[in-house]
Amino acid sequence: MLSREDNELLVRVGPDAPMGELLRRFWVPAVLSSELPEADCPPVRVTLLGEKLVAFRDTNDRVGLIDAYCPHRGASLFWGRNEKCGLRCVYHGWKFDVDGNCVDVPNVEQGEQVKERIKTRAYRTVERGGMVWAYMGPAELEPEFPETEVFNLPEENRYIQKMVVRGNWLQFMEGDIDSSHVSFLHRRLDGAPVFKDRRSSKFQFSDPAPQWTIQPTEYGMMMLARRNADEGHYSWRVTQWLFPFATSIAAPVTSPFTTNLRIPLDDEHTCHIRIYARPDGPLTDADYSVINDGAMFPEMIPGTFVTRDNIDNDYGIDREDQRSNTFTGIKSVPVQDYAVTQDQFGSPISDRTRENLTRSDQAIVMVRRRLLQRVRALMEGTEPDEVKKAESYRVRPIDIVCPKEVEVDEVAAHAAATVN
Amino acid sequence: MLSREDNELLVRVGPDAPMGELLRRFWVPAVLSSELPEADCPPVRVTLLGEKLVAFRDTNDRVGLIDAYCPHRGASLFWGRNEKCGLRCVYHGWKFDVDGNCVDVPNVEQGEQVKERIKTRAYRTVERGGMVWAYMGPAELEPEFPETEVFNLPEENRYIQKMVVRGNWLQFMEGDIDSSHVSFLHRRLDGAPVFKDRRSSKFQFSDPAPQWTIQPTEYGMMMLARRNADEGHYSWRVTQWLFPFATSIAAPVTSPFTTNLRIPLDDEHTCHIRIYARPDGPLTDADYSVINDGAMFPEMIPGTFVTRDNIDNDYGIDREDQRSNTFTGIKSVPVQDYAVTQDQFGSPISDRTRENLTRSDQAIVMVRRRLLQRVRALMEGTEPDEVKKAESYRVRPIDIVCPKEVEVDEVAAHAAATVN
Amino acid sequence: MLSREDNELLVRVGPDAPMGELLRRFWVPAVLSSELPEADCPPVRVTLLGEKLVAFRDTNDRVGLIDAYCPHRGASLFWGRNEKCGLRCVYHGWKFDVDGNCVDVPNVEQGEQVKERIKTRAYRTVERGGMVWAYMGPAELEPEFPETEVFNLPEENRYIQKMVVRGNWLQFMEGDIDSSHVSFLHRRLDGAPVFKDRRSSKFQFSDPAPQWTIQPTEYGMMMLARRNADEGHYSWRVTQWLFPFATSIAAPVTSPFTTNLRIPLDDEHTCHIRIYARPDGPLTDADYSVINDGAMFPEMIPGTFVTRDNIDNDYGIDREDQRSNTFTGIKSVPVQDYAVTQDQFGSPISDRTRENLTRSDQAIVMVRRRLLQRVRALMEGTEPDEVKKAESYRVRPIDIVCPKEVEVDEVAAHAAATVN
Repeated sequence: MLSREDNELLVRVGPDAPMGELLRRFWVPAVLSSELPEADCPPVRVTLLGEKLVAFRDTNDRVGLIDAYCPHRGASLFWGRNEKCGLRCVYHGWKFDVDGNCVDVPNVEQGEQVKERIKTRAYRTVERGGMVWAYMGPAELEPEFPETEVFNLPEENRYIQKMVVRGNWLQFMEGDIDSSHVSFLHRRLDGAPVFKDRRSSKFQFSDPAPQWTIQPTEYGMMMLARRNADEGHYSWRVTQWLFPFATSIAAPVTSPFTTNLRIPLDDEHTCHIRIYARPDGPLTDADYSVINDGAMFPEMIPGTFVTRDNIDNDYGIDREDQRSNTFTGIKSVPVQDYAVTQDQFGSPISDRTRENLTRSDQAIVMVRRRLLQRVRALMEGTEPDEVKKAESYRVRPIDIVCPKEVEVDEVAAHAAATVN
Repeated sequence: MLSREDNELLVRVGPDAPMGELLRRFWVPAVLSSELPEADCPPVRVTLLGEKLVAFRDTNDRVGLIDAYCPHRGASLFWGRNEKCGLRCVYHGWKFDVDGNCVDVPNVEQGEQVKERIKTRAYRTVERGGMVWAYMGPAELEPEFPETEVFNLPEENRYIQKMVVRGNWLQFMEGDIDSSHVSFLHRRLDGAPVFKDRRSSKFQFSDPAPQWTIQPTEYGMMMLARRNADEGHYSWRVTQWLFPFATSIAAPVTSPFTTNLRIPLDDEHTCHIRIYARPDGPLTDADYSVINDGAMFPEMIPGTFVTRDNIDNDYGIDREDQRSNTFTGIKSVPVQDYAVTQDQFGSPISDRTRENLTRSDQAIVMVRRRLLQRVRALMEGTEPDEVKKAESYRVRPIDIVCPKEVEVDEVAAHAAATVN
Repeated sequence: MLSREDNELLVRVGPDAPMGELLRRFWVPAVLSSELPEADCPPVRVTLLGEKLVAFRDTNDRVGLIDAYCPHRGASLFWGRNEKCGLRCVYHGWKFDVDGNCVDVPNVEQGEQVKERIKTRAYRTVERGGMVWAYMGPAELEPEFPETEVFNLPEENRYIQKMVVRGNWLQFMEGDIDSSHVSFLHRRLDGAPVFKDRRSSKFQFSDPAPQWTIQPTEYGMMMLARRNADEGHYSWRVTQWLFPFATSIAAPVTSPFTTNLRIPLDDEHTCHIRIYARPDGPLTDADYSVINDGAMFPEMIPGTFVTRDNIDNDYGIDREDQRSNTFTGIKSVPVQDYAVTQDQFGSPISDRTRENLTRSDQAIVMVRRRLLQRVRALMEGTEPDEVKKAESYRVRPIDIVCPKEVEVDEVAAHAAATVN
């Protein structure tokens, strides 16, 4: 349970909100690189942290992310002509470069003078891991890009899916760190996980109430779940929460692992980027058959970032399947998550004052506390530590079985040390 | 005409509104019994008096009506698993019985202790007349179920149709007690009623301005319309208004009669339940041909409670039919009513400060006065009398022709005494 | 750039808004005459200056424009029966004539007395130029109908298209007087105008920054654009702004000219009436081939006033066409205008506090100033001069080439004197 004030502090992400300001200290994905497939291709509409923007890739392959509306009289630059290192407004031909400079004002004789005094809002971008990331904070505070393994892998090692959903970012992210729900929401009635890949250890579904250890770290938080395994052994699953909105989920070393990014578009809409990656090599044919079977990665409405199963068709729930086969009757893991989180307490912004938390929600409580602490500190002028710890993000989620003698600290140290 | 304050008092039905509180003293239909066709069938979303609920039929055939959102973290219980005498949330497996008790918390080791302190909102239900009724008021004030004849008939004696429409409940109900409109809105240009069944006495359409007597009663109100009939005779039609939202409409003893329920889902949406019933025996083939011809009971969009003719297609108005055949060019009686009441003065909540009432609106004025009196009394702590008069609801609407000597009081007494 | 207060003054058009009051001093188009094709035809819904109305053509061919809702209990008169010189409400049969008189109250015995005290809102109408115009101001101030040439031409001399768009009226009208945008938004990349008719002088697209002279006039404003033409000559295009919402656009004498009306339906919706007219004779086959080729007059969704290319399909933008053929990749001139004006600064009401105006926006600045002056004067009780100058509206837009010696005043005098 949260006070109304704390809930508001956590969920609001616009330019004037404290959490909005905190998130603007970090690199934030704006579009997939593939949405801007080549130099001078058509621009793309972007809503990010409550701001309306337009992204374009210029002639030199630099990506611009600028105010969606021309500063002259407000025409949308989405209709713009992307030509010769700038985006030109189709209303009167004014042109802007990726840095927000006005580089042409052809409809006025004194155009040269007008150019000097016009500048539009523009954000710095970098491309990493198949995404264009933006930095929307004060220029002098621009941080290093975090060394998170998954964002630095070669393209052939990963698969990315982008989905846009109604609902506040925080409740989706809370699902990622709430390992307790996996044993229910994503369960098959025969005990197997709903996604039939090889990565989920069989113990995850045989023991629905594991022993948790939650460790705050420099980059965020490590969540270790210990379950009884074969005789004399424990199964350990370590999930990594990467401040402020990414979570990497445990998988055995032989499998790809999953990372979820929950990016606030505005207070009521979230971009979910789901990455399936092998740290050690290209995805295999077997991996692609998992990707394509529809359980890990849902079917999309073509030409959109909307899942075919969504609130408009009750997430495609199949009550007969729910009775005889799966816990929910809903086909894919991400959509199962959307069904239970998209309208918690009947609203796109969950009313956390009505919650009844238990020990199983410990990780959620700690993440909220960490976020609130950072928001409050920033309101008083203290920058968040995480932005200075780019190298600390070099961690990996793991899923291993060890003799019972191995202590939790050893497992944690192993997880922290996995990435070289 | 009503003051703005009185209008607000009458139309608002949420848990904090005075009228909302008054309505919570009565049994209110929540779903049709047929929406929950068997034990352990899928749950159903319900909005009632502004509250979001979910209805389910448990293993023992008891119907639960509980808060739509799990008290743990607010996942919708509509996705829930209806199993072994309870509805189980698919997020973390918490389970609730029809009384709102938490009966399983499987994701926490200390689940037994958590169960003790968790209870969700649950309302008492009974099944009568093909509907599940809920009582949403204080437990200690739960009233007897009213002895209204139509809710106590065998299934084969009645036909039920449920329709959900945008618009405040009161304006739809005002149409039911506004007998004056029948001679216009529902008229065929050849003088016959738009619905070609046998129940409407021919005098109803030959005399558009009858002599009215409105009598307040213990259960609500009796409305007697007297028209000239064959020589030396009057035609009497007696309509029964059953406090707070039901109206039974006159029909000759040889015919089924119609009852309309106008149930507030929230301030701007109403559930219309329309019942066609024979007090004395099963519906006949002739009755079913009336039911199926589309004038008394409109065609629905399959799988919904929405009429095929609705505001999105201008209620299917056929201007040529309006010119040559019927008064409105709209096919069915309920839809004709929706067309004129759904957006009175351009709003889903009619602005009654703009009205110009005449003597023809006398019944409406009296019903509003009765409702306002009861609302105000309850605000001062006086419970409504009607809840204590379950047996007074044993009345029937009638349509008879009598010699002119028969006085209005005799007709009223006859109507009151018809049900044995 | 405008202050927030001035912006609000300019955009709000409801009955209580100062600009709403100013516009109510003028004749305003309510429907096309063709929407009411014959006596006693079905009524038509109208929203105008924020008021909900219904238009009907009575038995004597007079057009009524009255409150959309019956003053009795608010049923919509759109469902009404248009019969024998009046519109009859289908709820209780009350009937109203074009002057708003209640002429029948058939559901009450005392109907005659009720009639006397009931009157509904009704506006005076006239039919001119293929449109029904309404006067919605105080009766005693009703002005003469302006002598604008295009509204007085025979039917065969003109083509009319009506389009309804989301967005405040002012930003669409600003596009009409913003001659600067034509050289960009409507340009083909080969230098030809996007509409391939003969009227656009070739110089318009060869010189994107012409010399402007803006002259206030009694009827509104004359905008003269001077461009270099063949040796020793200037090209002059004279656009006429007809206070308060019409603009006639220059065309050579051999061609039809275009007039745009931007009529506020409410604060966020505008009716665009586009007229293509020959002052001197019937439209020719060549004119109709221009009309039908889809560039000057966009394709419509059948049975609506909505363009097929609209915001829901990104105005049908064709990025390949934009790259190789036209400046926008959007097919028709009006839709090109909608794309850049419909959501200036991301809102249906442009936030003019964020603008950066230049000398090219001089006409816009002057029009705003004129409107603001008139609004403010009216707030202090001074009626707008324009309503008394019906004859001053006898002007025509022109497009001519003159020797350089001809002065701007001579050109202006020529434009003013063209209509006899």
